[in-house]
Amino acid sequence: MAKKANNTKLRVMMLGGLNEIGKNLCVLEYGDDMIVVDCGLAFPDEEMLGVDLVIPDISYLEKNVDKLRGILLTHGHEDHIGALPYVLRTINPPIYGTRLTLGILENKLAEQRLPHKVKMTTVSAGDTVKLGAFSAEFIRVNHSIADACCIAITTPVGVVLHTGDFKIDVSPIEGEMMDLTRIGEYGRRGVLLLMCESTNVGRGGHTPSERKVGASLDSIFMNNVDKRIIVATFSSNVHRVQQIINYSAKYGRKVAITGRSMLNVVGAATRLGYMTVPDNCLIDISEIGRYPANKITIVTTGSQGEPMSALYRMAFSDHNQVELTSGDLVVLSSHAIPGNEKLVGKIINEMYRRGVNVYHEEAEVHVSGHACAEEIKLLHALVKPKYFMPIHGEYSHLMQHKELAEYMGMNPNHIFVCDIGQVLELDKNSCKRAGTVPAGRVLVDGYGVGDVGNIVLRDRRHLAQDGLIVVVATVDAETRTIMSGPDIISRGFVYVREAEDLMEQVRTIARDSLTETIDAGVIEWTQMKQNIKDDLSKYLYSKTKRKPMILPVIMNV
Amino acid sequence: MAKKANNTKLRVMMLGGLNEIGKNLCVLEYGDDMIVVDCGLAFPDEEMLGVDLVIPDISYLEKNVDKLRGILLTHGHEDHIGALPYVLRTINPPIYGTRLTLGILENKLAEQRLPHKVKMTTVSAGDTVKLGAFSAEFIRVNHSIADACCIAITTPVGVVLHTGDFKIDVSPIEGEMMDLTRIGEYGRRGVLLLMCESTNVGRGGHTPSERKVGASLDSIFMNNVDKRIIVATFSSNVHRVQQIINYSAKYGRKVAITGRSMLNVVGAATRLGYMTVPDNCLIDISEIGRYPANKITIVTTGSQGEPMSALYRMAFSDHNQVELTSGDLVVLSSHAIPGNEKLVGKIINEMYRRGVNVYHEEAEVHVSGHACAEEIKLLHALVKPKYFMPIHGEYSHLMQHKELAEYMGMNPNHIFVCDIGQVLELDKNSCKRAGTVPAGRVLVDGYGVGDVGNIVLRDRRHLAQDGLIVVVATVDAETRTIMSGPDIISRGFVYVREAEDLMEQVRTIARDSLTETIDAGVIEWTQMKQNIKDDLSKYLYSKTKRKPMILPVIMNV
Repeated sequence: MAKKANNTKLRVMMLGGLNEIGKNLCVLEYGDDMIVVDCGLAFPDEEMLGVDLVIPDISYLEKNVDKLRGILLTHGHEDHIGALPYVLRTINPPIYGTRLTLGILENKLAEQRLPHKVKMTTVSAGDTVKLGAFSAEFIRVNHSIADACCIAITTPVGVVLHTGDFKIDVSPIEGEMMDLTRIGEYGRRGVLLLMCESTNVGRGGHTPSERKVGASLDSIFMNNVDKRIIVATFSSNVHRVQQIINYSAKYGRKVAITGRSMLNVVGAATRLGYMTVPDNCLIDISEIGRYPANKITIVTTGSQGEPMSALYRMAFSDHNQVELTSGDLVVLSSHAIPGNEKLVGKIINEMYRRGVNVYHEEAEVHVSGHACAEEIKLLHALVKPKYFMPIHGEYSHLMQHKELAEYMGMNPNHIFVCDIGQVLELDKNSCKRAGTVPAGRVLVDGYGVGDVGNIVLRDRRHLAQDGLIVVVATVDAETRTIMSGPDIISRGFVYVREAEDLMEQVRTIARDSLTETIDAGVIEWTQMKQNIKDDLSKYLYSKTKRKPMILPVIMNV
Repeated sequence: MAKKANNTKLRVMMLGGLNEIGKNLCVLEYGDDMIVVDCGLAFPDEEMLGVDLVIPDISYLEKNVDKLRGILLTHGHEDHIGALPYVLRTINPPIYGTRLTLGILENKLAEQRLPHKVKMTTVSAGDTVKLGAFSAEFIRVNHSIADACCIAITTPVGVVLHTGDFKIDVSPIEGEMMDLTRIGEYGRRGVLLLMCESTNVGRGGHTPSERKVGASLDSIFMNNVDKRIIVATFSSNVHRVQQIINYSAKYGRKVAITGRSMLNVVGAATRLGYMTVPDNCLIDISEIGRYPANKITIVTTGSQGEPMSALYRMAFSDHNQVELTSGDLVVLSSHAIPGNEKLVGKIINEMYRRGVNVYHEEAEVHVSGHACAEEIKLLHALVKPKYFMPIHGEYSHLMQHKELAEYMGMNPNHIFVCDIGQVLELDKNSCKRAGTVPAGRVLVDGYGVGDVGNIVLRDRRHLAQDGLIVVVATVDAETRTIMSGPDIISRGFVYVREAEDLMEQVRTIARDSLTETIDAGVIEWTQMKQNIKDDLSKYLYSKTKRKPMILPVIMNV
């Protein structure tokens, strides 16, 4: 028996979070036990028209649901917990996370109607959870959300350290610095596999402390005592919001919160003790009229330019309580996520047009939540892992992280840049690639999870590009005569009222095509439709250089 | 008579290039004379689905075609000349530009079938062109394309200086530094109105010299003698391509050019003498197999990640002659234009996946073609204009440029941040806003110019978001019975094979709706269709939270 157990290998794989940003999901498997670290969503790219969000394919978890001992969460960002409301429809393992992480998750789950109660266990940094063959210790890290952890997982073959997302903030706003000592202790005893995030590995130096933002805010508040100040930031960045409140209080301003997610998070964070608000500082947004404008700070969502956000509505005169004017100063305490640059630019331009004073990137009003190269090097130096898998990043990040690890002295053969679904098999003295498990993306559109796939997307792209033309005719199948039509309906192709000649020509070609096919003795509807399609496509491309989708419908009476 | 002439005002307006990037077009009007500076295109934003490009609304020029004395071009970039192939379909004024500018324009016009011959006159920096009441001097500037000029236009009420796009390069690769002396002479004599570009006004300091890129290239070539080197850049940046050739020659490499526009421009630039290629240095891309890989440089298009470009095809194994491998080094000598970040990221990731060595932004292999704040200040200091209109930029740029002008001591009331179509009326001692002329955007899609407007775009967005459902039925109008159908066809909504129940339900609801409407004695087809639409929309939203376009078609036999 003992011998058999010794032959068991540890299997490690990512079902999301490699060669992509988001939908992070890591699986560890040993014998009959399996655990998962994080279960996040990703945002759709421009090609995924109409898609709301993307989650990992978890069919491998569903298949092994009997082995699944639990899901461990490193922190409460969407790309680490956001798939749970969908994933928990089909599986229901116990979930472990810190207080704020589970608080945010509870808010999200409350919006769903899950078929069962979710089992959640709150842990604190320093706690260890025993799950089958695994024992997982949560260790404090710094990040752009409070209560974030990395996880050291002791397995029968050795320790796996999963960093989650982290930075090393030697002067955090509240709470403690990342527990480098504890990580160092693991390193001294020996870490088999390090799985380390890669977001900022391409940036040299260190990520500045959150406190640096405070200094910038202080000087902006000090130099603009005559202005109303509006600060937009990520609602989950509790420490950032705390700083905005602190400097508002220092300069005698009342703070009003707006934006649904900002209200949610400030509420939860205050209730759970992650935020301290001075007495009488917070007011309701409806009360701002009672104070002079220059005694008000408004904290809002919308720093990514989201068209329905509070900041957007303030800028475009669509917010109930606030309209931005030349007496206002707006701080965008954020960095545009790739893909959002144009949305952010749109709001900024509108604010400039209104004479609003805008502070953004160059004003140092934001710092990243992710470690830069020197911090990552320090982590590698403390952990000194035997094997290493860079995670959380696109290929460019993963490959740069590989280079960094080699620079730190690692054997290149001990570094594994993987794809999602690819399995690493480890024992005490070896690590090798061992096949794949199903992995991929599942698209969420409205209530539908997975019912939008490549064919639907291909059609949406076709329709988006050149619109469509529907050709409808009624044919008497027995006498083989056209009873009605063909009628032509078009949408998204040309402005029909100014293209009457073209549309008339389309009708003529469709009728000729149909008559010809019938006269030639063809009886298959499919062939009739294909001929109409071919004739119209050719004509329209020659006339307009466009390729609308052509949908022939032939009714049989 | 003389008195009447003295009352005539100069009218200045932009028909494009304010609160937007691109489609630059400036109009100057005095009595019966009108001239235009530049006539550019803009690229569509993400909302303009299927649109190829955007040009200015030139109905004001068409209306005043008898007054139009000519179009002056500052340089050969798309955002300054790209609308001409379309605009010249309806108007045909003489065109003035430098040799390279007109050379590029000729290439573009050759692809069009214009109804008339275009009158082009080549000018050199230093030349003055007399056009009715105007006299326009072309003055050398530096920019990311050779042979660029600003234009000093002497009018009866004073001088208007239009900068085009510029930077001040004290060590240009070929040709001369921007002619600050000539600009200073105009300034000393008095400039009535300065129209100055604003692209980089938000960046402090100076834009580095093009020569800086050479230094970076030199060190990359020197340190990578074992690699094949591929450099992607903008084809119009003749000086950049020249430097790549120079350093290739220095390190004993042959240079192969690929990408249609790159071949065009290198051909034109060599022919016109803007580029000097050492003997035996250029080879055809089909010949690269004859040399060791590390003796080859490939110059290519695709630095913006364009999916059909040569670089894209090289990265995704779709190029006839070149496939990128781990023996390659790729330099992206460019900056991602806002909106293209994700496309560029996609290529970079694929290259990293293949083990290609990638040099991009951090390697200082690109410099901007636009002046930064300190250069713009120097221009203001030399010109000392009486009035000032910031041009070429979004609101944020124009407003920051206004701030800069105030910092330089200008009277805020003498600075005019305008919208397109807004007219400034000037005489020797005054400048004021004087109404508007028609201005806007015209969308080009395939051969169609202006036939895609808001309704078509709205439909495309709707179709892109949730797809469509077509409901077809044949009804006998006399007996008021359903002869056939309703049939349901859907595209881009759900994957029909896995949603049979839903589609069957849709058919039932459509039939019930139609029957009910007929039974209720309704005879208008419009009402029948509306009822089907309403019933289906309600049902589908409740089931899927999606709103596909619903197209009911009722055939009458």
